[in-house]
Amino acid sequence: MTYVSLHDLNSRQRYWLITGSVGPRPIGLVTSINPGGQCNAAPFSAFNYLSEEPALLAIGIDLYGDESHRPGERKDTLSNIVVSGEFVINMVDEPMLERAVRCGTDHPSHVSEINEVGFTLAPSTVIAVPRIEEAPIAWECRLFKILECAESRSIVLGEIVGMHFRDEILDEKAMRVRVDRYNPVGRLGGPTYCRTTDRFVVPVPSYDGRGKARV
Amino acid sequence: MTYVSLHDLNSRQRYWLITGSVGPRPIGLVTSINPGGQCNAAPFSAFNYLSEEPALLAIGIDLYGDESHRPGERKDTLSNIVVSGEFVINMVDEPMLERAVRCGTDHPSHVSEINEVGFTLAPSTVIAVPRIEEAPIAWECRLFKILECAESRSIVLGEIVGMHFRDEILDEKAMRVRVDRYNPVGRLGGPTYCRTTDRFVVPVPSYDGRGKARV
Repeated sequence: MTYVSLHDLNSRQRYWLITGSVGPRPIGLVTSINPGGQCNAAPFSAFNYLSEEPALLAIGIDLYGDESHRPGERKDTLSNIVVSGEFVINMVDEPMLERAVRCGTDHPSHVSEINEVGFTLAPSTVIAVPRIEEAPIAWECRLFKILECAESRSIVLGEIVGMHFRDEILDEKAMRVRVDRYNPVGRLGGPTYCRTTDRFVVPVPSYDGRGKARV
Repeated sequence: MTYVSLHDLNSRQRYWLITGSVGPRPIGLVTSINPGGQCNAAPFSAFNYLSEEPALLAIGIDLYGDESHRPGERKDTLSNIVVSGEFVINMVDEPMLERAVRCGTDHPSHVSEINEVGFTLAPSTVIAVPRIEEAPIAWECRLFKILECAESRSIVLGEIVGMHFRDEILDEKAMRVRVDRYNPVGRLGGPTYCRTTDRFVVPVPSYDGRGKARV
């Protein structure tokens, strides 16, 4: 094993080693609206749920990087969430991945990524921010809290208020997702993504071996 | 599409719909020590990195559930992190998954999951909590902040201070992870896991098409 001290690394090296280590990461394609009502979409993989009661998720949002034509600017997603207090997390499956990635391009603020890449907007049920119709699952969210960890990094905690499921994915009777009909893609290091089609099941036994497995 | 209001769901239903929606989730097998020095290990998939500067990750930790023989008790991992302020995130690949899942069984506090399932401990470099030798990558972490979101749910923010890499995984010259030699597994809904071997690459083009793709 080789040990690397984080103290000795610059930001870019930290980014590569951290994002290369932690995977597969779920991808949240976040839609948000600016005060003019224009909808923005951007993909984040510094993202996961953290709690079901309250129903919380986190997104780590940095500034536009040096490779952008808008270096050091606050990302549109963050500006929009701060002002409107609402956003949608659109889950990403393989047919929409390439378009979702293109939404991560540093478009100017006035350009809507959604039109550029060919997604369709659909209205949400309880919030003003639209969801992306192509997404198999979409979560309507309200801002819960923003943690400003550094000048260049904000952690957005959102509360899920409602969910849209493509009909065949939701088992309404059991109120569970049909895992076998839902194929989100994950992010690995750099521009590498993975399918979730190569699966296996590992139940958790109870400690004394007599109880029910927690499936 | 079918809309489900979170307001209408109980905790268990929320858990299934949220964890069924967001995937694939990375798995952090967290080691921590109690005041007696005994090492505990438990897997979490409400987990991801959120920032590289500072180098932050989040873990959502609930109480032991109703199916446990310790319902309503604080999880050992959380108790240990609160007291010692340190922990290790051990990344999980396929050869260690089944043992990592068994660490999630509700062992009594005095039983070390590590011995029970057959993992080996190795010393960390700058913190007192050991890492798991079988893990391809391990992050040494210090407690950054705990957010108490509800009586039953804490969000632990940790700062990564150092990383251990299995030698063949780290490209020390480029200071990057060799993505092609590292195969973490992801968690989907319920007891379903996925391999990350079915991969593809999607570079992000720059907005004007003239810049370098961000790979």
